[in-house]
Amino acid sequence: MTDYREILEEIYSEVEPVLNEGLVADYIPELARISPGQFGMAICTNDGNEYTIGCANKAISIQSVSKVFTFAMAYKELGDKLWQRVGKEPSGTKFNSLVLLEREKGIARNPFINAGAITISDIIYNHYLNPLEAVLSFVRELSGNPNIDINKKVKNSELEKAYTNFALGYFMKSFHNIKSDVPSLIDFYTSHCALEMSCVDLARTFRLFSQGGKNPWNGNQILSLSQTKRINAIMMTCGLYNSVGDFAYRVGLPAKSGVGGAIAAVLPNNMTIAVWSPCLDTNGNSLAGIKALELFTTKTGLSAF
Amino acid sequence: MTDYREILEEIYSEVEPVLNEGLVADYIPELARISPGQFGMAICTNDGNEYTIGCANKAISIQSVSKVFTFAMAYKELGDKLWQRVGKEPSGTKFNSLVLLEREKGIARNPFINAGAITISDIIYNHYLNPLEAVLSFVRELSGNPNIDINKKVKNSELEKAYTNFALGYFMKSFHNIKSDVPSLIDFYTSHCALEMSCVDLARTFRLFSQGGKNPWNGNQILSLSQTKRINAIMMTCGLYNSVGDFAYRVGLPAKSGVGGAIAAVLPNNMTIAVWSPCLDTNGNSLAGIKALELFTTKTGLSAF
Amino acid sequence: MTDYREILEEIYSEVEPVLNEGLVADYIPELARISPGQFGMAICTNDGNEYTIGCANKAISIQSVSKVFTFAMAYKELGDKLWQRVGKEPSGTKFNSLVLLEREKGIARNPFINAGAITISDIIYNHYLNPLEAVLSFVRELSGNPNIDINKKVKNSELEKAYTNFALGYFMKSFHNIKSDVPSLIDFYTSHCALEMSCVDLARTFRLFSQGGKNPWNGNQILSLSQTKRINAIMMTCGLYNSVGDFAYRVGLPAKSGVGGAIAAVLPNNMTIAVWSPCLDTNGNSLAGIKALELFTTKTGLSAF
Amino acid sequence: MTDYREILEEIYSEVEPVLNEGLVADYIPELARISPGQFGMAICTNDGNEYTIGCANKAISIQSVSKVFTFAMAYKELGDKLWQRVGKEPSGTKFNSLVLLEREKGIARNPFINAGAITISDIIYNHYLNPLEAVLSFVRELSGNPNIDINKKVKNSELEKAYTNFALGYFMKSFHNIKSDVPSLIDFYTSHCALEMSCVDLARTFRLFSQGGKNPWNGNQILSLSQTKRINAIMMTCGLYNSVGDFAYRVGLPAKSGVGGAIAAVLPNNMTIAVWSPCLDTNGNSLAGIKALELFTTKTGLSAF
Repeated sequence: MTDYREILEEIYSEVEPVLNEGLVADYIPELARISPGQFGMAICTNDGNEYTIGCANKAISIQSVSKVFTFAMAYKELGDKLWQRVGKEPSGTKFNSLVLLEREKGIARNPFINAGAITISDIIYNHYLNPLEAVLSFVRELSGNPNIDINKKVKNSELEKAYTNFALGYFMKSFHNIKSDVPSLIDFYTSHCALEMSCVDLARTFRLFSQGGKNPWNGNQILSLSQTKRINAIMMTCGLYNSVGDFAYRVGLPAKSGVGGAIAAVLPNNMTIAVWSPCLDTNGNSLAGIKALELFTTKTGLSAF
Repeated sequence: MTDYREILEEIYSEVEPVLNEGLVADYIPELARISPGQFGMAICTNDGNEYTIGCANKAISIQSVSKVFTFAMAYKELGDKLWQRVGKEPSGTKFNSLVLLEREKGIARNPFINAGAITISDIIYNHYLNPLEAVLSFVRELSGNPNIDINKKVKNSELEKAYTNFALGYFMKSFHNIKSDVPSLIDFYTSHCALEMSCVDLARTFRLFSQGGKNPWNGNQILSLSQTKRINAIMMTCGLYNSVGDFAYRVGLPAKSGVGGAIAAVLPNNMTIAVWSPCLDTNGNSLAGIKALELFTTKTGLSAF
Repeated sequence: MTDYREILEEIYSEVEPVLNEGLVADYIPELARISPGQFGMAICTNDGNEYTIGCANKAISIQSVSKVFTFAMAYKELGDKLWQRVGKEPSGTKFNSLVLLEREKGIARNPFINAGAITISDIIYNHYLNPLEAVLSFVRELSGNPNIDINKKVKNSELEKAYTNFALGYFMKSFHNIKSDVPSLIDFYTSHCALEMSCVDLARTFRLFSQGGKNPWNGNQILSLSQTKRINAIMMTCGLYNSVGDFAYRVGLPAKSGVGGAIAAVLPNNMTIAVWSPCLDTNGNSLAGIKALELFTTKTGLSAF
Repeated sequence: MTDYREILEEIYSEVEPVLNEGLVADYIPELARISPGQFGMAICTNDGNEYTIGCANKAISIQSVSKVFTFAMAYKELGDKLWQRVGKEPSGTKFNSLVLLEREKGIARNPFINAGAITISDIIYNHYLNPLEAVLSFVRELSGNPNIDINKKVKNSELEKAYTNFALGYFMKSFHNIKSDVPSLIDFYTSHCALEMSCVDLARTFRLFSQGGKNPWNGNQILSLSQTKRINAIMMTCGLYNSVGDFAYRVGLPAKSGVGGAIAAVLPNNMTIAVWSPCLDTNGNSLAGIKALELFTTKTGLSAF
């Protein structure tokens, strides 16, 4: 059994010089206030050990990382029928692009770009009586943290400027691929993006994907093994917007990033890793977060490849 | 130690009903003559066992699978400098598209779409005194089969109709990203695509990627561990044209396909699998080949995820 | 002085066989009810004569033809400053495309595709205290018909399904190129598209453009000569969506079409021609309307070329 | 009868300050040597008068202006059958773009962008025993200048760097829309682009289009009136690459520009105007040339609108 504490310490000291490189996301006013320079990282191994460093227990805005949870919920409910409404190919374009959506008649490339995540939100929104409660229950149960909640200030701040997401919603509705009323849908979508969880919460929750679909606390099978592997596959090919190739090359793990600066990654059958640092590279991914994960897989020799 | 013979037999009987679905590649006249309905599959485990079924020893036109070999050669020689001339992101478009090339000023999205593979060929062509001999030596040594050669009839048949590849070559040259004379370059590119190897040859050669960059016969380190993992990563995100997402979802292995109907896949640190069946799906990948690989990872529970 | 009555009669008999070809616009439920097979045409010469045939006095939904009026109003007010917010090049794409809008960062290609017309509506909406009254005054004065009004049923029917226009509005707002609240703006835009005018009304109003910018009733200079020529130029290069080239080739007149089946055309310094027939070709232009105009310029030898 | 000498003098003095703005085309080495600061302009009225200023008699490289001649020749021979191989819509993209060509399966948007002009060259190349002689005869006869010839140094200089045109030719050939051998075709295409004619030669030749298709010297009908109008229409909507809208707005005449700095324009039934100044704007059109034409139509009030 490896002790990852030393490796985390090495990583922290090696990313420290770049913690202020890149820029905090500025299109969500409330997020733009975050102090740069922060860093946290948490590892949960399948055999039950946890290792943390930096502000790994600080609640952060997980933003697009939440899309893995809503996707897992929708996939669990609909299974392969879900692919009638969204694709599963990398987009090769920016996270909020409308271009492919036009060519592909309202079917988003994959569930992790904004358009596809809005489609998934539409499924959740129409499937549950109280969709936001359903999402909260899901993450509270899997993380073991009953206090997880959305940050309403962040949500409202984002909603005020959510013009592109409104555009995506209406555009897909014009192709009959959105059932909800668009303003209500974007309200819900913006809400689940405003979930606040710590790196530890994220790493614990992601054990669902490192442990073959089992609830990490009681072993109940939430997703089948095959479904779990497929979610990991989609994270690998679509989880980092238009830098999936670079991330696979440098890090080599299924993962999902968010513009809040979080990245949650899975080493299947082995462990989960969550990292947070708010300054983003030009692709909208945490600059120090990617570097930390790259250092981790390089130092340990562990990766999907 | 698992015995994969039974699994291969199951797979063969399960893919048999679909062996005539899809269409043999028709844009290369010489390939268009191949009888549909054929199937071969070979597994080489890292611990030295081999399992085969069907016509696994039949020499087939490996076409784009050869691009992994030229890429590995160029990467070995140039290292990360290579990324100045080609990207490493999935393209989200057809294998021979020129669209992104225009937007991205002659830098192809990745080394496995045609444009990128032509760039790699340009590197090889300008690096070796006898570039085709260099490629032949590489695959002969790694496969252990000194008789591997190109099929000149296939090559000439392809060269006659290689208008799109000429267009790609000239277009990249207009952006100063091709150094060679274009007709000579396309001649070389078409030659290495016309390599003929059996599934067994392919699986043996691909052990380079399942064994951390070591020559499978003598253990010499050809590529570093890190380089090997990164080649696997690029196969995962870019190896199947515009169906990388679907292939990762269904199969979950780094792999490279060719329009001749071959697919070679890697289970890192574990084994290689090569499969061949000439009828292609609408994305240009072997229809039965993908199904066979999907059955393999589903039945064994083995995959990168 | 030519008598155009005979020519109009010839045209009517020649277009009659195609009056039921094409399809009535079906995406606005209220318009989808219009009986096909109808046809009207009106000519107003600069020397004061009017010629009509068919249902030239029937009030019809002018839809996008209204965009010439709002554009003329905005151009009159802002002059060349207007070009900071919208381009003046043909788009080469469908009237409601979002693709170019993304590449060109929220600046629509021209004021006559939907996105550009929404930008123009935004200008009008923010410039006038009562923008819809301003548009009504403008067309009532120039047509000499004080009874022109919008059809609220058509407007409401269109507004209910205006998802693409909402998407365009929000998308441009994300690029800071829309100042209004989007739902209010689309309400106003949909209102002026629902203007009902007859072919005679349209031809009379368009004399503004055939008479060098003068109010056709009292000779007051509304637009300068240069501005008028430029509006005609934009109609020529951008007035028929993605069939401007074909229309210039076949007809050779500055014109604007609408999905209600109306086309209003200008022979500068000479006359105006308005035609209506509700069945549309695949580009969304009145099939018989274009044919009638082509017959007119062919028979008379009159055109801009 | 207006005397245009004074207007030409005014124009010259008004464009003089901008003659060195913009850049001489640098992608053809032989053209890159031209001294900036030069200017010539010629007018030929239909009633037989000619007016010139500056170096209007200097032989210049007409480049893409030659495409009007090859198009007129092909259109004369094939009539409307020609539209099976090329479109007639403005492209909205750069003159040498391959993007639309892919979407539209090898059918270029119009005969004046490079791809379409190469298609037209392919028609000419396969129609005449000696295609280059045919083009020379055509322009020598219409200009009345038997000494017009191609500049072989310019041609060879251009051919050496004609990678994009080779790419366009091969790409269209991959869609079966080019019949010739590509290198021979690009040699011919480059040859007719290297025609050298003076502004006076150009203005005289263009009378074909201002005089309803008649040979300006003997009145023989070369093109029908309708064909002539249609060629003018295509110049209006497609003659200035991706600034057709702006040119129609500012100048308002059918015209064709070339990267050598020439622009030839038509005032139908009235006159022709040719202008030359080698420095180009960012769209590849003569900066001072467009300004001179804008001044001409503004000062005279003459234009198509």
